[in-house]
Amino acid sequence: MDVTQVASVLNQEIASLQYGQHPPELYEPIRYMMSLGGKRLRPVLTLLASYLYTDNWQKYTKPAIAVEVFHNFTLMHDDIMDAAPLRRGNPTVHTKWNNNVAILSGDVMLVSAYELFLELKPEQMPTVIRRFNRCASEVCEGQQLDMNFEKIATVSEEDYLQMIGLKTAALLGFSLELGGLVSEAPERDTILLRELGESIGIGFQLKDDLLDVFGEQAKFGKQVGGDIIANKKTFLLIKALQSATGEDQAQLQHWLAKKEFVAEEKVKAVTNIYNRLNIRQLCEAKMNEYFALGLFCLEKLDAPEARKQVLREFVEQIIHREN
Amino acid sequence: MDVTQVASVLNQEIASLQYGQHPPELYEPIRYMMSLGGKRLRPVLTLLASYLYTDNWQKYTKPAIAVEVFHNFTLMHDDIMDAAPLRRGNPTVHTKWNNNVAILSGDVMLVSAYELFLELKPEQMPTVIRRFNRCASEVCEGQQLDMNFEKIATVSEEDYLQMIGLKTAALLGFSLELGGLVSEAPERDTILLRELGESIGIGFQLKDDLLDVFGEQAKFGKQVGGDIIANKKTFLLIKALQSATGEDQAQLQHWLAKKEFVAEEKVKAVTNIYNRLNIRQLCEAKMNEYFALGLFCLEKLDAPEARKQVLREFVEQIIHREN
Repeated sequence: MDVTQVASVLNQEIASLQYGQHPPELYEPIRYMMSLGGKRLRPVLTLLASYLYTDNWQKYTKPAIAVEVFHNFTLMHDDIMDAAPLRRGNPTVHTKWNNNVAILSGDVMLVSAYELFLELKPEQMPTVIRRFNRCASEVCEGQQLDMNFEKIATVSEEDYLQMIGLKTAALLGFSLELGGLVSEAPERDTILLRELGESIGIGFQLKDDLLDVFGEQAKFGKQVGGDIIANKKTFLLIKALQSATGEDQAQLQHWLAKKEFVAEEKVKAVTNIYNRLNIRQLCEAKMNEYFALGLFCLEKLDAPEARKQVLREFVEQIIHREN
Repeated sequence: MDVTQVASVLNQEIASLQYGQHPPELYEPIRYMMSLGGKRLRPVLTLLASYLYTDNWQKYTKPAIAVEVFHNFTLMHDDIMDAAPLRRGNPTVHTKWNNNVAILSGDVMLVSAYELFLELKPEQMPTVIRRFNRCASEVCEGQQLDMNFEKIATVSEEDYLQMIGLKTAALLGFSLELGGLVSEAPERDTILLRELGESIGIGFQLKDDLLDVFGEQAKFGKQVGGDIIANKKTFLLIKALQSATGEDQAQLQHWLAKKEFVAEEKVKAVTNIYNRLNIRQLCEAKMNEYFALGLFCLEKLDAPEARKQVLREFVEQIIHREN
């Protein structure tokens, strides 16, 4: 068993899912979103976690995919709220169809996520669905906080970490926990799996913030500097606003306030400020703290070392990703 | 046990539900929607159906309320899609807050509906949640068809009945079926209960179409003639377009095409055409057909006559409603 095999089982199953036919405006967008690909990170984590405790990990493919369907549902609705034109290089659903289609199709997509949990044994459902509901609410809380942050002048480091803990990390935490729950891992391990996922999730988002500024354009895929151009309150900007003084503070405020600018000039200027303030190092230190915490949880899992190694390698891939 | 008692138990429970606190933009709209009242028709039906088979109907209050929460979730999202300013005489959520809040808060509301099903016995969950998912998808299908119908010139009677069967009747069908499922009614009865609800649901929507034109303003609550003013493709308009000839057809097309008009004049003119074509009688006949079908299903239920009588009386209240 290795990650490639897991991913291939998942992609085959995802491609064969049935979502209903009529009216097409309701179901086509679901098929479209699910066909845009992506790393399938979350269901891979679920199955790797279940493999820690059982040979029958393939049995949990559908509940694992519930997490991927839910994730894509949140993307469909977030893209409306953020008025995003593109998703994975393709038009977003509300752009390709319209807002109403994206709302309603997303709603049905959330319903289909629940449908995939019905593959579980009935006695597993209450715990799994209760934990999923809690996680789904947290993801929505994180999205609402993220939107609120756009409208306020300053966000504290603490509030930012809380927000990404909800918006991004909660679902990675649930993905791993789910693998433990379905394969009847000891309760202590399901808690450790969740903590592992949540820690990796926060590190994952901090890495995202870093790559957006310091990533290599050729590998990154998105436009390097996009967050700087949009004044996005990332960990980097929050830290810079916190620590800049004198000329740096004035320069930073100048670029944040400027309505018209040449994109490359702004990106270069703000990156220079980040460099003078050692923001990259500060963010990397915080990120590594969370990754270390995650790996510490992984070590404590009560599972065979060889199986833990498969999960460890996948987590390290996430840690060292460059896009 | 009577309907007043059921409604009071439900309203008390609804008032005491907890939905989370932070951020307030996410949870306040849920409390707001649930506090706007309404007849609580659906959960009353669930509990009346469960009472047919058990004395412990109160035990199923939370799953019954899941249906009410789901119904209000659909209203919150439908109101965005229909750009509706008012809901039960109060500002809609997207008007009072904004579209993004209404999308996201609705999403969490759908999640909380599922949470209320977790009160069931685990062995009941697969069937109940599978049936609920099917019904939830149907309600979305109906809403999408309804939006599609706005953009096409003619809708057939058959397509219209299919659309209201999905958008309105499916949930009334599930409400009654749910009462049977949770109280472990014979399978034949859960099917009859669903058919009862679906038939009453179609009759209910046809009554809505009728009241909108022929209701007494003082009792109706909404503006009489609203559907005529908006060219809404109701059963009445579909029937009129189907059967009008000569001068009536010309007059009808004239009023449908007219961009500027005095509302009362249009309402009066179109109502006169309906009267000449006996549209009211045609719609009443179709409605009564569905109500009769519903009552026929009710008679066949394998439950004590006195308990069926409580449900029968409530169904007759729905049939004879004037608002």
